[in-house]
Amino acid sequence: MYCSIKRATTVSTTNVLKRCFSQGYQLNKSQATGVVFMNMGGPSTVEETHDFLYQLFADNDLIPINKRFQPLIAKYIAKFRTPKIEQQYKEIGGGSPIRKWSEYQSVKVCKMLDEISPETKPHYPYVAFRYAKPLTEETYQKMLDDGITRAVALTQYQQFSYSTTGSSINELWRQVKKLDPNRSIVWSTIDRWPSNKGLVDAFVANIRNKLKEFPEEIRDEVIILFSSHSLPMDVVNTGDAYPAEVAATVYQIMSKLKFKNPYRLTWQSQVGPKPWLGAQTLAISKFLSEMDSSKVPGICLVPVSFTSDHIETLHEVDIGMIEESEHKDKLKRCDSLNGSEILTKGLAEMVKDHLKSGELYSKQLKLDYLLGKSSDPADLDQLFGDHTKIKN
Amino acid sequence: MYCSIKRATTVSTTNVLKRCFSQGYQLNKSQATGVVFMNMGGPSTVEETHDFLYQLFADNDLIPINKRFQPLIAKYIAKFRTPKIEQQYKEIGGGSPIRKWSEYQSVKVCKMLDEISPETKPHYPYVAFRYAKPLTEETYQKMLDDGITRAVALTQYQQFSYSTTGSSINELWRQVKKLDPNRSIVWSTIDRWPSNKGLVDAFVANIRNKLKEFPEEIRDEVIILFSSHSLPMDVVNTGDAYPAEVAATVYQIMSKLKFKNPYRLTWQSQVGPKPWLGAQTLAISKFLSEMDSSKVPGICLVPVSFTSDHIETLHEVDIGMIEESEHKDKLKRCDSLNGSEILTKGLAEMVKDHLKSGELYSKQLKLDYLLGKSSDPADLDQLFGDHTKIKN
Repeated sequence: MYCSIKRATTVSTTNVLKRCFSQGYQLNKSQATGVVFMNMGGPSTVEETHDFLYQLFADNDLIPINKRFQPLIAKYIAKFRTPKIEQQYKEIGGGSPIRKWSEYQSVKVCKMLDEISPETKPHYPYVAFRYAKPLTEETYQKMLDDGITRAVALTQYQQFSYSTTGSSINELWRQVKKLDPNRSIVWSTIDRWPSNKGLVDAFVANIRNKLKEFPEEIRDEVIILFSSHSLPMDVVNTGDAYPAEVAATVYQIMSKLKFKNPYRLTWQSQVGPKPWLGAQTLAISKFLSEMDSSKVPGICLVPVSFTSDHIETLHEVDIGMIEESEHKDKLKRCDSLNGSEILTKGLAEMVKDHLKSGELYSKQLKLDYLLGKSSDPADLDQLFGDHTKIKN
Repeated sequence: MYCSIKRATTVSTTNVLKRCFSQGYQLNKSQATGVVFMNMGGPSTVEETHDFLYQLFADNDLIPINKRFQPLIAKYIAKFRTPKIEQQYKEIGGGSPIRKWSEYQSVKVCKMLDEISPETKPHYPYVAFRYAKPLTEETYQKMLDDGITRAVALTQYQQFSYSTTGSSINELWRQVKKLDPNRSIVWSTIDRWPSNKGLVDAFVANIRNKLKEFPEEIRDEVIILFSSHSLPMDVVNTGDAYPAEVAATVYQIMSKLKFKNPYRLTWQSQVGPKPWLGAQTLAISKFLSEMDSSKVPGICLVPVSFTSDHIETLHEVDIGMIEESEHKDKLKRCDSLNGSEILTKGLAEMVKDHLKSGELYSKQLKLDYLLGKSSDPADLDQLFGDHTKIKN
């Protein structure tokens, strides 16, 4: 039986587990399934901004600068960018809500899994961030302490990029070698879910709700402007799966909306001087919103590649694209998925199917690893599957 | 009753109509529906290569050089490139089969429409190419001569780009103004069909067939490398719909194939010094095919944005990527759709639904025209719909 968690949004994963234990729940080592939400993360407080930026710019999989000098360069860039980014986190309320939502969603998913997949219960929720607390290392240690023996690395980047999910998997492999050389945890991964029913339906519901805020007479003419985090063209040109998988998510959402509105997929958050994948959300949003209302009566911005709010929605879109626009009356942003029950239900069902199938990773992942460039890539055959027998 | 056409692949649309008439069929002006297959076309004989290239490089919508000097520049580029391209057409049998297949498919579609949509029959097949015979002008004149009063401009670019379908629509509008100022033909358009059931099922069938040519023990590990015609990044960055719609087609195909194989979407046919959308098919195909067979046992190339064979499949893929590869034993190309009955059935059903719906164009087209750049764009409101009453 899963212990009931009230106000899950405000408790951390550790507290969840503590409370479970305090209620006398005994973890059965041979049964417990860890469900690990992997994501980039963000600073929960303004003070964590520098460390977050350092981790981010030090990731050679995300930003391939130079393996040897990357830590030094990352230190410099982080120091240089910290004041500006700290200011942005201050403007959105003093930190990123990504940890809060990740913990909330992971608890919800595990709770539902205990009901719909009793044969793999109990399910324990974890969060492993790539650039913020809790880092993969911290979470892995906690899982070992909790006696977890079976775990699913569930990426929260719904669409696979080698620079995001690939980077998280590479980091997981480094921690396996460091913290779990005797392989007490058997790992598998859900490495992408661009057409997950819960994901698509949750976006559809949120878009429909947001469209209702536009006057009825223009509602069907409002342009739905999907916005996804961009990628540098040199990553796109390696054959990275991401752009096509994002487009797949968008098309499925529009199919369910019966293509009732005009829509377009655009890309945001470009940084630095190199070419990135466009069209850029800000440029298109600006260009269209400046048009006469008879042509463009309204625009509904839909951030489509994250599962919750984060600085790219709360600051880049809400402030940079809407608040500072001269045509903000025309612009609205669709709510992020955050506490969507449709999403967590879809995730729980996906994890259930994954556990039942015995699949270790998707049919695409090996190809992603052939095409992706990393100075320290994971060994997929060594990382995933049951390696406990080797040691016994 | 539609007259029966034997060996339709070898007869032209004109002959189809002539034969219909010779069998005593009287076209009813108030009923006849023209179904116009719009595409870029290609030289049917080697001698037509120069004129094709001139038309192509003179298209300011496809290659925005300079409206005033474009004809002169096009003349120069066409002259310069003709010998090389003539040689390529010689190597694929003396011309492009695109006219043959377009005529074949259009006849098939109209024949089926007469059966499944009796209320809009008779349906008459036409082909209007943007850069080769029969050009839009020639076809429009023929339609007027045939007494057509209702026509559907059915793009053969399944995924919309302003530089392809947009260019064809712009050319159609120029011919309406020139040849049909009194508006005797009422036009509508099917401007995209990336998820058409027939299209997706036809690709699925052809891919399955091609995979059977690989040994059974490696079949599920063969990489399906989808290849679509690339676009210059400055077109992508306008917010052109094409990249996301191609990705949608690919995802639907892979969904029906149950993601049984690794796959990737790549882009071909880049020309000139400017950056184009990647990853490039040739580069990825080369990179992967050079890998050890344990990692990449085979590659199945699937040209995904054309409805028939053309120089980009028969020369660029078959010769440039496979025949000239040092690893050609690993590489196969999936057949193009050409005479696929699954495709023509899907198209006929789509045209039937379109005629029944009364839709003039898709919900996306106005947005495509807001974002697309043309020195001479169509007026969509003037081009589509019933404008006959204005003159009466």
